Amino acid sequence: MVCIENVRFLDGSVKHIVTEGTFIESVGEKKDRSDSVIDGTGYLVIPGLVNTHTHLAMTLLRGHGDDLPLQEWLETKVWPAEKGLTGEAVYYGSLLGAMEMVKSGTTCFVDMYFFCRDVARAVEEIGMRGYLGSGIFDFPSPESDDPFETAVKFIEEAKGKSELVVPVMAPHALYTCSEETFHKCLEVARKYDLIFHTHVSETEREVREFVDQKGTTPVEFLYEGGFLDEKFLAAHCVWLNDRELDVFAEKGVKVSHNPVSNMKIAAGIMRLPDMVKRGIAVSLATDGAASNNSLDMIEVMKVCALLHKVHAGDPTVVTAGNVLRMGTVNGAESLGLKAGVIAEGYLADLVLVDVKKPNAVPYHDFTSNMVYAMQSGNVDTVICNGKVIMENRQFLGVDEGEILEKAEEVAQDMVAG
Amino acid sequence: MVCIENVRFLDGSVKHIVTEGTFIESVGEKKDRSDSVIDGTGYLVIPGLVNTHTHLAMTLLRGHGDDLPLQEWLETKVWPAEKGLTGEAVYYGSLLGAMEMVKSGTTCFVDMYFFCRDVARAVEEIGMRGYLGSGIFDFPSPESDDPFETAVKFIEEAKGKSELVVPVMAPHALYTCSEETFHKCLEVARKYDLIFHTHVSETEREVREFVDQKGTTPVEFLYEGGFLDEKFLAAHCVWLNDRELDVFAEKGVKVSHNPVSNMKIAAGIMRLPDMVKRGIAVSLATDGAASNNSLDMIEVMKVCALLHKVHAGDPTVVTAGNVLRMGTVNGAESLGLKAGVIAEGYLADLVLVDVKKPNAVPYHDFTSNMVYAMQSGNVDTVICNGKVIMENRQFLGVDEGEILEKAEEVAQDMVAG
Repeated sequence: MVCIENVRFLDGSVKHIVTEGTFIESVGEKKDRSDSVIDGTGYLVIPGLVNTHTHLAMTLLRGHGDDLPLQEWLETKVWPAEKGLTGEAVYYGSLLGAMEMVKSGTTCFVDMYFFCRDVARAVEEIGMRGYLGSGIFDFPSPESDDPFETAVKFIEEAKGKSELVVPVMAPHALYTCSEETFHKCLEVARKYDLIFHTHVSETEREVREFVDQKGTTPVEFLYEGGFLDEKFLAAHCVWLNDRELDVFAEKGVKVSHNPVSNMKIAAGIMRLPDMVKRGIAVSLATDGAASNNSLDMIEVMKVCALLHKVHAGDPTVVTAGNVLRMGTVNGAESLGLKAGVIAEGYLADLVLVDVKKPNAVPYHDFTSNMVYAMQSGNVDTVICNGKVIMENRQFLGVDEGEILEKAEEVAQDMVAG
Repeated sequence: MVCIENVRFLDGSVKHIVTEGTFIESVGEKKDRSDSVIDGTGYLVIPGLVNTHTHLAMTLLRGHGDDLPLQEWLETKVWPAEKGLTGEAVYYGSLLGAMEMVKSGTTCFVDMYFFCRDVARAVEEIGMRGYLGSGIFDFPSPESDDPFETAVKFIEEAKGKSELVVPVMAPHALYTCSEETFHKCLEVARKYDLIFHTHVSETEREVREFVDQKGTTPVEFLYEGGFLDEKFLAAHCVWLNDRELDVFAEKGVKVSHNPVSNMKIAAGIMRLPDMVKRGIAVSLATDGAASNNSLDMIEVMKVCALLHKVHAGDPTVVTAGNVLRMGTVNGAESLGLKAGVIAEGYLADLVLVDVKKPNAVPYHDFTSNMVYAMQSGNVDTVICNGKVIMENRQFLGVDEGEILEKAEEVAQDMVAG
C-alpha cells in the first residue's frame, strides 16, 4: 500500500491517494497502515499518459536522416540500418525509449516492432505497461523470414503471462501485407481476443495507390472484410473521407492520432474535429523516435491542440481538457484498460508533476498548465501498476547511465552497418 | 576569463572555448590562465537562443482564460487583469519569465510591455540581455496616461547605460496607434538609432479592418510612410501578400516569427518559405506566456519546423539547421548584436546542453537532436555576456524559490482584481 499525501489534483483540490496492490483503493482520506508514504506537497498528480502507437526501439535511429523526403529517408536510411537489427539492439533501444517515456509521464504504450521478447524484457525491467505487437508484412523482417509466424509465436508465449506485457496483433499496413495475411491476422486476433493494431491511411499516396490497385479505399476494404470493431486500433488515419469516418464511428474503431510525426514527415492533418463530432474515440501517440524525434506525450498533447486550432482557424476547437483526456483515459479505454482516471478501482498508474518550477507558475489553471506549459522536466515521480518506478527523476529498477552507454553503442553499430 | 574545456559542437567536433571579458577570445585551444574552468565533457554547446518578441511579465497570466475566442479572451480576461498591474508585479513577472527563458537556453529577448524600469531591474539581476520597449498606444496604459511620453522617458534613461539592457521603440500596432503616433515614434527611433518593434498583420481581421478604414494595407502604409528599413522588427506578419513580402525584402525588414502563439490563438500560418525564398531575415519568438503558454525557444524551433513541413506538404521545406539559425544568429542579427555564432570576436552568450539523457541519445546528428529531441530540461549551464548566470540549472544571481513564491502571489492578486 502506497499513500500519496497532500497532492494537487487538476481541479485544484488537494487530497490523498491510497493504492492497494496494483489499484487505487481510495482518493480523499489518509490511511495510516501504508507501507510507503509519498509527500505530494508541491506536486500535481495526473493519470499516467498512454501512448497508443510507437516503434520503441527506433529510438536507436533518432536523428538518422531527418528532413528528407519520406521515400528517400526509408530507402537510404531506415531500412538499411534495420537490416542489421539484433535482439540485443532492440533490448537496449527499448530500454532507452522506455526511460524517455517514463521521464515524460507515460506509463503505458502500444508498440509495433521486432524481437518482441526483447522489448518485453525491457518493459518488465522498467516497470511500465507495454502492448506489444510483432510487426507483420509479406517479406522477411530483420528478425525472421516469416514475420506472421514469429508474431503468432510471441502472442502465444506472452498471452496472460504478465501484468505489464500484453501482446497485440500488429500487421504493418495494407500496402505491405496481402489481404490474405490480414485475414490470417484477424483470425488469430479473434481467437486470442487481441487488440488489432495497424497503420491506416497515413499518406495520400498509399491511399491513392490502394484505390488504383483494388478499386476501393483501405477503410472500405477493412469494413467489407469484417475487420472493424472496438478492438481495432488504427494509427494515423490522416486521409479518411466522410463515409470512412462514419464507418469508424459505427463500428467503434479506436484511432491513434500522431500529430508530431504526421507534421514532421508532412503526411497531412488528421480530421480530428470531424472525428470528435462523430464520437470516435481518439487517443494520442508519438510514433517512433525516428519520425518525431521524441517520445514525449506532453509535447504531443500541446502540439495536437496547436495544430488543430490553427488548422480550423478556431482556438476553441480543441481545449487543454480535451487533449489531456485523449492522452490518458481515451488511450486506456482504447486498450480496454481500467486506467487513465484517478479514482477508486482504477489501476494505480500515476504521475507526480513538479509545479515549483518557473515554467509552471502561476497556478491559474492546472489543466492548462499541464498541457500548454509543462515540459517533461516537470515529471518527478512515476507509479505504474501500484509500484514506484521513478522517483525524483531517478529510476528504481535500472541503471540509466549504463543503458545510455549501451544504447549509444548499438545505435552506432546499426548505422555503421 | 572562462575556459569551457572539451565541449561538443553541433558538427560533432570537441573543442575548447575561451572567453575574455564579454567576448569569445578563441575556439580551439585551451588557455592555462583562465580564472574559471568549466568541464564541458558530455555537453553540447550552442549559441544562446534569441527570442525576438515577448511580453515578459505576462507570465503572470499564464493559463488565465485559455481556449477562448481571441476577442473574448482579451476583453474578459487579459485587459481586466492588466488594469491592476503594478511595477512590483511586472518586476516579479519578469524575473519569473526570465528564469524560464534561461532554463530553456535563451540569453537575449525583445520585450514589449509596461513598467520597463522594473523589467530592466529583473533583466540585470538575472544577467541576460533584454531589448526593452515600453508599449505605446493612444489610450492610457496600466502605467501611464501618456504611454508615448513614458516610453520616450525610458529610452532616454536607459540608452547606453547598460551592456544588458537596450531600449527599443515599441508602438503596439497600427490598430491601437494613430498614424501620427507612429510618425512620432519613428522620429524618436531615428534620433536615438533604435530598433522599431511593432505587431504587424497578426490576424486577418485587423488587416481587413485597416483596409476598410484606410484603403491601404498596414504594410503599404508603413512603406509609404518611410517606416521600413533594417531596424524595423515586425512581429507575426501572418497576413502578408506577395507585394508586401517583396517590400519587406527590398527594405531589409526583420521578421519575428511566433509559430506557437499564432497556432494557439488560431491567427494563421506565416508564409515562411516565401519569405526565405526572398531572402527576408526571419527570427523566432515565443510571444507572451499568456498566448503560448511557455517561453521555450527549443519548443518554438521544433514546432516551427513541424508546422511548415505539414503546411507545405514537404518535409524538406525547413530543416533543423534552418530553424536553429533562425533561433540564434538571425535573432542576433535582427538586433545588430554580434552574437548567435560561436567564434572569436562574438559575444560570449553560450548554452551547455546535457546530452547524457534518454531523450538525447543516440548521437547521429547533434543539430537534429537539438531541434527535434531536446527539451528545456537538457539545458544545464548558461553563460551570458561572458558571465555564468546558471550552472547545473541553478541560478547564481537570484533566489529561484523566493521569486516563484512572490510571482505566484502577485499573479493571484492581479486576477483577483
